[in-house]
Amino acid sequence: MQGGASQQFGMIPLNLYRKKKAAYIDTGSWSTKAIAEAERYGSVAVLASSKDQNFTYIPEWEDAQIPQDADYLHITTNNTIFGTRFSRLPHSPIPLVADMSSNILSERYDVSQFGVIYAGAQKNIGPSGVTIIIIRKDLIGHALAICPKMLNYQTHAEKGSMFNTPPTYANYMAGLVFDWTLAQGGVAQMEKRNQEKAHLLYDYLDSSPHFQATVSDPHSSRMNICFSLPSKEQDQQFLAFAEKEGLRFLKGQRSVGGMRASLYNPMPIEGVLRLGEVMDACESGL
Amino acid sequence: MQGGASQQFGMIPLNLYRKKKAAYIDTGSWSTKAIAEAERYGSVAVLASSKDQNFTYIPEWEDAQIPQDADYLHITTNNTIFGTRFSRLPHSPIPLVADMSSNILSERYDVSQFGVIYAGAQKNIGPSGVTIIIIRKDLIGHALAICPKMLNYQTHAEKGSMFNTPPTYANYMAGLVFDWTLAQGGVAQMEKRNQEKAHLLYDYLDSSPHFQATVSDPHSSRMNICFSLPSKEQDQQFLAFAEKEGLRFLKGQRSVGGMRASLYNPMPIEGVLRLGEVMDACESGL
Repeated sequence: MQGGASQQFGMIPLNLYRKKKAAYIDTGSWSTKAIAEAERYGSVAVLASSKDQNFTYIPEWEDAQIPQDADYLHITTNNTIFGTRFSRLPHSPIPLVADMSSNILSERYDVSQFGVIYAGAQKNIGPSGVTIIIIRKDLIGHALAICPKMLNYQTHAEKGSMFNTPPTYANYMAGLVFDWTLAQGGVAQMEKRNQEKAHLLYDYLDSSPHFQATVSDPHSSRMNICFSLPSKEQDQQFLAFAEKEGLRFLKGQRSVGGMRASLYNPMPIEGVLRLGEVMDACESGL
Repeated sequence: MQGGASQQFGMIPLNLYRKKKAAYIDTGSWSTKAIAEAERYGSVAVLASSKDQNFTYIPEWEDAQIPQDADYLHITTNNTIFGTRFSRLPHSPIPLVADMSSNILSERYDVSQFGVIYAGAQKNIGPSGVTIIIIRKDLIGHALAICPKMLNYQTHAEKGSMFNTPPTYANYMAGLVFDWTLAQGGVAQMEKRNQEKAHLLYDYLDSSPHFQATVSDPHSSRMNICFSLPSKEQDQQFLAFAEKEGLRFLKGQRSVGGMRASLYNPMPIEGVLRLGEVMDACESGL
């Protein structure tokens, strides 16, 4: 549908709340925003949080702790800012809702495990301004009375996502990316490549005397790899050096600092190899 | 902001309701949808409606009838399906809210007369998926408690329309169209051209023994000109003939039938002249 994934933060509780109680795992600024919006319409149990260490890991939870009387359990499968990823999924007795904005199509998921998957398009799918929603049919049609019509999944499901004019150009571009993804071998092939790219960079970070990964296995993201040098000054030096070498947008988000390499589907392995060369060259001058 | 104009149908009452009472002028299917959404959150006084004649005219109203205790008065300045246009505006003691989706930038308006102007981009601005909102500052910050954060104008106003990732490509395209519009002489020049184009086609319809305009002056749209032949069969013949001549998308919306020529800003006067030639040629064979 039109709009960004942030709109889903409100749509999820507005559509799924019946007992007006939800469970969330808090793994970063996006989950925090999603929780704040859900709390406006009911109560939220935070099953686990990694806020204590600035979200640099995926917190532990026991599946047995998932409240059976809640309407759903919400997770963010990949966290762009902090570079973390759920390496195992909750086995949930209540519908599992996943914000997959930053890793959809990057690895295989068993869609039948989820109640709702939503994802803004702008990482692995197409231009910003369109959001993919995959929802179990039985979860449609129970929106709260106050839910605006355009935020009711039923409105869109009944009209084949064309209740209003869809974002035609963004949809067209997404179609081309789906074709490209299939031609490359589909999601299975993307997963293989993304594992290779991530392993290459994490191996490099593990063996480097100076560069260090921010997140450690098994919590580390394959899409957004955060790393740093021993001092902020060295981070700045590296970023300036990399920029001169033609490698841009490597600066980490300001709440984390350091560097972040985003290895979304379209990034070829050559990009990671080149990053390694530039890191080598920079390191030899440190 | 992201999303289509239909989302504004809910956003207007969610943001502007304080006494939870609004006035609407009902001039077609878009206003009808906007009214239905406003009625979900409060009461709506329909000041005037042209539903009795399938919305083929703009109904009369007295400015003195506008309820002073309502939160706002909502109009749809141009109605695409029915080919009507407000040739005069209400002089309203309460904030005037206008859905200008289908005629923004096509003629000059005194923006200071409005409390809110909203417009989906996909007629005179750019690709679908982005909506322009011009709102009086004092109307921001009073949203109902139930208003989802992404539907609160304050959220977007405070962050310079970048609370979340904006629809970047659609915004870029809109910027190019704004540049083009300015280079052509701006909205004043667009207005002049659109008047010329519309006059040309309406004059043709007035003088034709067979073709007839659906809407009569002063209610007639300059953007969407609806017309028909004496029978549905002849309409079909004309549409098939026009298609062969390379003129497409002339079929009227199914609730109206007949033909509809949409003369948005990018349509040059040559397009209207060509339509006249094709109508002439078809008519000579009737």
